[in-house]
This record gives sequence, structure tokens and C-alpha cells, in this order.
Amino acid sequence: MASDSRSNAGVDHITTVEKMDLFEQTGERVIAVLSAGNLATTQSVISNLRQHCGTGVNDLMACGTLFDAARTVGDMLRDVLAKDSAHVAPFGDPNATFLVGGQISGEPHRLFQIFSAGNFIEAGPRNRFLQTGETKYGKPILDRTLTEDMSLRRASKVTLISFDATIRSNLSVGCPIDLLRYETGSFTSQGLTQFTNADPYWDKLCSDYSTKLTDLVASLPEPD
Amino acid sequence: MASDSRSNAGVDHITTVEKMDLFEQTGERVIAVLSAGNLATTQSVISNLRQHCGTGVNDLMACGTLFDAARTVGDMLRDVLAKDSAHVAPFGDPNATFLVGGQISGEPHRLFQIFSAGNFIEAGPRNRFLQTGETKYGKPILDRTLTEDMSLRRASKVTLISFDATIRSNLSVGCPIDLLRYETGSFTSQGLTQFTNADPYWDKLCSDYSTKLTDLVASLPEPD
Repeated sequence: MASDSRSNAGVDHITTVEKMDLFEQTGERVIAVLSAGNLATTQSVISNLRQHCGTGVNDLMACGTLFDAARTVGDMLRDVLAKDSAHVAPFGDPNATFLVGGQISGEPHRLFQIFSAGNFIEAGPRNRFLQTGETKYGKPILDRTLTEDMSLRRASKVTLISFDATIRSNLSVGCPIDLLRYETGSFTSQGLTQFTNADPYWDKLCSDYSTKLTDLVASLPEPD
Repeated sequence: MASDSRSNAGVDHITTVEKMDLFEQTGERVIAVLSAGNLATTQSVISNLRQHCGTGVNDLMACGTLFDAARTVGDMLRDVLAKDSAHVAPFGDPNATFLVGGQISGEPHRLFQIFSAGNFIEAGPRNRFLQTGETKYGKPILDRTLTEDMSLRRASKVTLISFDATIRSNLSVGCPIDLLRYETGSFTSQGLTQFTNADPYWDKLCSDYSTKLTDLVASLPEPD
């Protein structure tokens, strides 16, 4: 799972925020919640989820399945929008979406996308990846190269290239990229890496990809 | 200039239409008008423009500059929307946009984008290409590889790859692709080519690009 860090309310209100929140108990559960949309809405949902941890109600640390975790995030989103939407709408879009992925002991890893209506869908063998937010620029490279049998490291590389495409074409997405490589059954978030603009791997990946892609296009025959 | 041929009003109303209309007098002017948005709106604008040819009013065959041609298309769009918008809005978005490009004798080739408000912008050395409609999937390859000193044939190839990216990632765009390669000063549309799914060049371009891109991604080092 990966998220960028750019938040904007117009070109003169650009800030850097975290959009990946982890709810984790080592050896038992790792739930990553990725946010997109109205920042006040997403932060309110995350803070409410944090405040409910340990209460047993709307509690991501207590739910028995990732399906229940997705429902909890969706319900919390509905609560926040019910309170805020009418007040926010005159100024802008109050809506938000989330990706909820990870693993809870007793079931395999799972991945969900929560829509602004609070309902949600799950990834599966035929829809191998889910995107939310500014999705279109980065989708072609995922459509072309992601395969189900790809290693986690190679999938991570493709994900970073997808973010690079979006960053180059759209001001609303920017570094650092938070990348969580979660190994099924590990029940730990130690695979979390942050890629800033200064990261040597990220910098070389982006420049090598760009150079080689330009060469590739040049090598293809031209129309008569 | 290039346009696809897919029109849709939901997944069960998909049709194939022409979105590139030419207003041409050999040796004197070539004006290509590319349509996006509500099909009833765009067809009404184009039919009105055709009916005005030779009248001297809102007449693409009479205007002295491509700037005037762009204004004529924008004004016609405003007229159509003033008549139709209120009736169409309960059923869907009545809006439309256009690209207007080509050359009129006495000035260089020019390219404009007309927004649904009827106003417009022009391409220049710092914004070398304009897109409208389903633009995002195909933008990264243009951002990465289009250069001002590129040959018309190479730019045509990049344009076709950009359309391929969009076609693979989005149902609302489809073949045939109408591609107009206009040589400045030629005042003819003889560079117009149609690429269907059965076209051997287009087929090979898409499959070679896809294979080589997958190989390229595989060749790049993976994160530790």
C-alpha cells in the first residue's frame, strides 16, 4: 500500500500531510488506512477511530475481520459527514474515500476501498489493485505491468513508478511516498518505507525510467 | 491532432462516432474541430457551423484568423447551450469542449482549446499540447516524451501511444483513431489517417510498446 503526502485547497494552500495511518498490534493485526479527499473529513475520521481504540465500540483494535474494519471506517465516515457536510458544502467538497488493507489474525490479508457513501468493495484476483484520489495518471502503468504472481519488491517498484507518473503530470500529488510492503502472516509494519525527493533509490528509479522510456518510444517504428 | 471514436451515455449506450470535423479549402485553410463532451451538444455545434458556411456570419470558411475561428466555435457553443442546457441538465451534463487547430493563409498554424463556457486558450512553446475529454490516462506519456523539435511522424507515434494508454485503462475511449498530421503551409488535410483495431501498424505499435515497457520495468532495480 502506498500514499503520497500532498494536500491542497487550491494552488496557494499546499501542505504536506500523512495519508497512511496504521492500527497495529504486533503479531495479531496490521490495519493500514489510506486517506483521500477533504483533509478535515479524513483527519476527523482518523482521530475518531484513534479515540475509539480500546473502547470496544467502532474499535479497529478489536474487530475480528478486516471486513469489520472496513465497515467501521465506513460508519465513522458517515458519522463525520452527517455532522459536517451541510456546513462544508458551501465552501467545497466535504467528501472523502479510504483504502483499508492489512491482516487480522485468523484470516488472510485483505484490501478494501471505502467510498464517500460509507459503502465499500474488496480487491480480489480479478481486481488486483485499488486506487483512490488522483488515480488516472498512474493507472496505465499498473494496468500494463502488475501481475498476480509478481514479487512484493517488484510490485513496490511498479507502485513507485505509478506515483512518479502522477507527480509529473499533476500538482496535487507529491513526495514523500509512504510505502508499506506487508508480508502476509508477518503481523508487523516494519516494511514501511518513506521515499522523499532526496531518496537515492527513488531518484534513480524515476530518472532511469524516464530515460529508458524515451529511448523505448524512439526505438519503435513511426507511422508512414 | 487526434481523436477517438467512442461515445457513451452509460455502459449500455456505447456508439462509434466521428469527433474530428474538417473545414477546408485546399491551398487556403484547414481547420480541424475536435469534439468532447455531450454528443447532442457537439453535433449541434458542428451542424450549426456547417450551416453557416458561406453565409459570412459565424462562418469558419470566411474568418481571417484561427483566433476568429476559435471564437466562432465558442460563440456557437454558447448559443447551443443557451438553448439546450436547462432542458438537458435534469438528465445529464450538457457541456462540451473543443480543440480547434490548423492554419489559415496569412498566419502560422495555431491550436486552441475551447471550454464549455465558450472561452478558450491557445497552445504555445510552453504548453506544447492540448487535450480534452478523457485526458489523464494518456497525459504522462505526452509529458515525458513530447518535445518541440520532434518530427511530425514521431509526434504522431507518441500521440497513438497516448491513446493506447487511455483505451486500455478506460472504457469510454475506443478506436478508430482519426489522426491528422498537418504540415504547416500545406493547406490540405491529406495527412488524415484512420487507425482501426485491425490496422497492422497500430496493432504492432501497441503490442511492441506493451512488451517493451514490461521488459523495461523488469530491468529496473527493485527497492531493498
